[in-house]
Amino acid sequence: MYPYRQLFDFTQEVFLHIGCPADDARLAAEVLLSADLRGVDSHGVARLSGYVRLWEAGRINPKPNIRVVHETPSTATVDGDGGLGLVVAPRAMAIAKQKAEQVGSGWVSVKNSNHFGIAGYHAMMALEDDMIGIAMTNASPLVAPTFSTDRMLGTNPIAVAVPAKHQPPFVADLATAAAANGKLEILQRKEKKAPSGWIQTKEGHNSTNPNELKDGGALLPLGSDRDHGSHKGYALASVVDILSAVLSGANYGPWVPPFVAFLPVADNLPGEGIGHFLGAMRVDAFRPAEEFKQHMDNWIGTFRRANAVSGERAVLIPGDPEREMEEVRLIQGIPLLPPVERDLEALAQRFDIKL
Amino acid sequence: MYPYRQLFDFTQEVFLHIGCPADDARLAAEVLLSADLRGVDSHGVARLSGYVRLWEAGRINPKPNIRVVHETPSTATVDGDGGLGLVVAPRAMAIAKQKAEQVGSGWVSVKNSNHFGIAGYHAMMALEDDMIGIAMTNASPLVAPTFSTDRMLGTNPIAVAVPAKHQPPFVADLATAAAANGKLEILQRKEKKAPSGWIQTKEGHNSTNPNELKDGGALLPLGSDRDHGSHKGYALASVVDILSAVLSGANYGPWVPPFVAFLPVADNLPGEGIGHFLGAMRVDAFRPAEEFKQHMDNWIGTFRRANAVSGERAVLIPGDPEREMEEVRLIQGIPLLPPVERDLEALAQRFDIKL
Repeated sequence: MYPYRQLFDFTQEVFLHIGCPADDARLAAEVLLSADLRGVDSHGVARLSGYVRLWEAGRINPKPNIRVVHETPSTATVDGDGGLGLVVAPRAMAIAKQKAEQVGSGWVSVKNSNHFGIAGYHAMMALEDDMIGIAMTNASPLVAPTFSTDRMLGTNPIAVAVPAKHQPPFVADLATAAAANGKLEILQRKEKKAPSGWIQTKEGHNSTNPNELKDGGALLPLGSDRDHGSHKGYALASVVDILSAVLSGANYGPWVPPFVAFLPVADNLPGEGIGHFLGAMRVDAFRPAEEFKQHMDNWIGTFRRANAVSGERAVLIPGDPEREMEEVRLIQGIPLLPPVERDLEALAQRFDIKL
Repeated sequence: MYPYRQLFDFTQEVFLHIGCPADDARLAAEVLLSADLRGVDSHGVARLSGYVRLWEAGRINPKPNIRVVHETPSTATVDGDGGLGLVVAPRAMAIAKQKAEQVGSGWVSVKNSNHFGIAGYHAMMALEDDMIGIAMTNASPLVAPTFSTDRMLGTNPIAVAVPAKHQPPFVADLATAAAANGKLEILQRKEKKAPSGWIQTKEGHNSTNPNELKDGGALLPLGSDRDHGSHKGYALASVVDILSAVLSGANYGPWVPPFVAFLPVADNLPGEGIGHFLGAMRVDAFRPAEEFKQHMDNWIGTFRRANAVSGERAVLIPGDPEREMEEVRLIQGIPLLPPVERDLEALAQRFDIKL
């Protein structure tokens, strides 16, 4: 177990060492570690060495000039200048919130960025100002559209955060694939089979082999197959891709650059970097905030009190598992798997900093 | 087969006979029939007698005073005054588009409305002005949250329409349940079993009986079970419920009034009528429209050319099946099932109009 503070300080130091300004290094560490706190281990400090390798490959600009390149009172397009998505996305969300402050809502499409950690972090930035926050991003292609053998879309997450009064906030944060890649990685390490409906072979047949992607297979969209609505998961992932990248001028579909630095970036790219889409709506742009938050308490309480299936735990509100995990890990610390520990120790040695 | 024009004229006449102004009757007929044209038979003229029964029960106001009750430059809350959703939603979408014209985007949450037909119609209203359209609505509770036995959410659809240049537009229109109720009705008529993963018994066990809802069962969220992401479908349906109803002041969750007039409306309702959420974003609020539409053509063409699984039809773009159906039905006419024909004949007799 590693205390949060220890991993935070270390991560911040690493970002300082690759050339990030102090504010950016602190922000990037906070965003990255929020994944570990919330139990989304695949998107947290386990990726730190990946960001460093992208920087080494010249694919991350540690001192980006993040700027608005097009705007209206309620919208903006932001050029991330190749910066860390961990920094670009919160800056873009701040612009969305500013616009919401001024005209009720703000919507920012971002190009020329990189992986932004967990979508939920950015959506939750809206909560403190009684706003509803929305965050999505495209990602490296791993998911096949319904009826296709080809990897055309990322696991393209959608997050929506909604404030309540006495209840904790509602925070949905979901990949639009049947299962995110991180879950496959866990099965690979445990040498277990995947449930049917998560992956297909390169020919498009159902597979339970968690290593199938290495052999040209693909993840399946939310819904798994046509009978169970995979065309809906495919459509949702497509909407995320379009709003994040076609709208901003980032790369989309099969052209989204891979996170891993050893994979080459495709030629003739249609855009710049990867794309995000961020939104903020002031609750009181629709009805008085107090009234809304009281009804959210009623909504949350009503769903929490719904009858549970016998033998299952109680009905959960989106955001409950992650918040409970955060409470535990802030006290007990964050567990790291041996390969992640080794990665961090290598970074510590390389930059001559203490883990 | 009934020619589109014949069903349109008849539907318009019926709406005139229940007291709708001429413009409203024409609009309501157009919206309702767009479902039949696009092959969503469950949401079209098959529901006409249901709307009439709601009117008889005093639950539809044929002459609503649809008005903005709260607004900012980019947002509005609309009171539908108990009107037909078929009329209220397009009016609200027109307000969203007007705000998008002025400040880049417009977002309208609607209370005190009724069922609005297919979400896709309203989202597609944005296309003609080079806008991206978004439409969602809550609906009568039929879907159980993950781990629950209770029907707490509607099949709460999300539609997103995106313009292209030479390609037809991208139009996603999806229920957030594993399968919409209309599909169960088809199986009931054919006396066939449902695929596993669509429905559960009142105890929360998996069921393939398409009549399960009559015995207290529930539809399952998109994803079907926890292993395949039902918590994501539940979260998406919840987001639709919150944006459509908690934000506007409509009824939410288990309180959404039933479409069928013979079911009583619950006491102590937390809001008014059912709720919708409509959005419009000008494409050129983010980047030049021509540039965007060229990239959408590239996006659509690239996905259409993706390799298909052997034995399956080619990869489809969201909106393809509905557009192809519309082309066929505009020429060949719209097929009606015998019970729907009988319903319409009864309406014809009652109002003394020609079917």
